[in-house]
Amino acid sequence: MENARLAQQIRFIAEVDKLKNVFRQTLVTGSRRHENDAEHSWHLCLMVIVLAEHANTPQVDILRVLKMLLIHDIVEIDAGDTFAYDTARMAGQHAREALAADRLFGLLPTDQCAEFRALWDEFEARLTPEAKFAAAMDRFQPMLLNCLTEGAAWRMHGISSDRVLARNGHIVDGATEVWAYAARMIQQAVAAGHLAK
Amino acid sequence: MENARLAQQIRFIAEVDKLKNVFRQTLVTGSRRHENDAEHSWHLCLMVIVLAEHANTPQVDILRVLKMLLIHDIVEIDAGDTFAYDTARMAGQHAREALAADRLFGLLPTDQCAEFRALWDEFEARLTPEAKFAAAMDRFQPMLLNCLTEGAAWRMHGISSDRVLARNGHIVDGATEVWAYAARMIQQAVAAGHLAK
Repeated sequence: MENARLAQQIRFIAEVDKLKNVFRQTLVTGSRRHENDAEHSWHLCLMVIVLAEHANTPQVDILRVLKMLLIHDIVEIDAGDTFAYDTARMAGQHAREALAADRLFGLLPTDQCAEFRALWDEFEARLTPEAKFAAAMDRFQPMLLNCLTEGAAWRMHGISSDRVLARNGHIVDGATEVWAYAARMIQQAVAAGHLAK
Repeated sequence: MENARLAQQIRFIAEVDKLKNVFRQTLVTGSRRHENDAEHSWHLCLMVIVLAEHANTPQVDILRVLKMLLIHDIVEIDAGDTFAYDTARMAGQHAREALAADRLFGLLPTDQCAEFRALWDEFEARLTPEAKFAAAMDRFQPMLLNCLTEGAAWRMHGISSDRVLARNGHIVDGATEVWAYAARMIQQAVAAGHLAK
């Protein structure tokens, strides 16, 4: 006798396997291939459990931060990845992703669909301490990988340091110390010729 | 003025990027390339937040399960992936991985090194409700991907259903309902000719 709720949940788990085939502009270290959204999401979650003490809000709810980051990119299965510096494509991004959220979270039982949608909306709105810290990790990680690959994705797209600082400045809202580290890292990337001034 | 503790933590975060280049025998759906440990870890964590209600122990500590699964494969950066059915190689696996844990978790500040090592030891020992549920996810996920890719990894290595059932039977210790689902899934894989009887 099949457990219908479990079967529905497993269909969702099978569907989101597709996140492993959504590739980002960032390169991974070592082989220098493009990173995909699933491994990016893992890396962010790992950063959360290592860096939680640096969240601006003490006692940030780590479990909620992790849940947000585990699901934050699932919408890109339908909507595709939007490069952080592609301002033209970013215009329609939220509308595309909201449609994707309807379909993908809609695969889950109603209560979990509502929970995941609320987490995604919270992440997107960036108003709670948890969402601000999650967003700080999501922005710092590609900066770190770019620096570790001699600015590969920045140079590929002709991105300059002022754009990097403007795009990622909201890291300061979630983790001031991480932003201070990131700003020094950017200075060093410019000094090393990996990022245009 | 640099925050030395943060800098040390970020060196660890950079080092474990290598997990994205540790490939497993399992294929992902869609492109059917080999899965890597980082995206595998993401998938397990996502399964935890979807399937937590099916853990045998109600009120299992989900945050601890997630922490275990985020770090459980990091040792494979040094020790390599050991295929679940490679009994010869499995003999020395724990010793190789314990050395890797010393080096890799040793990159962290002392308190976090101790926390992560304790989590990894707990996962490996499979005695607590959290470790049993984490292990159930870790075993169910490759079975699911194998079924979704017509038994690709099983057929590649000539694995039969009795070995799959024996190797993964401890799923029942963490999540009885998930094991019941898995057992039916295996029957169907045999019936479809994707797995040798």
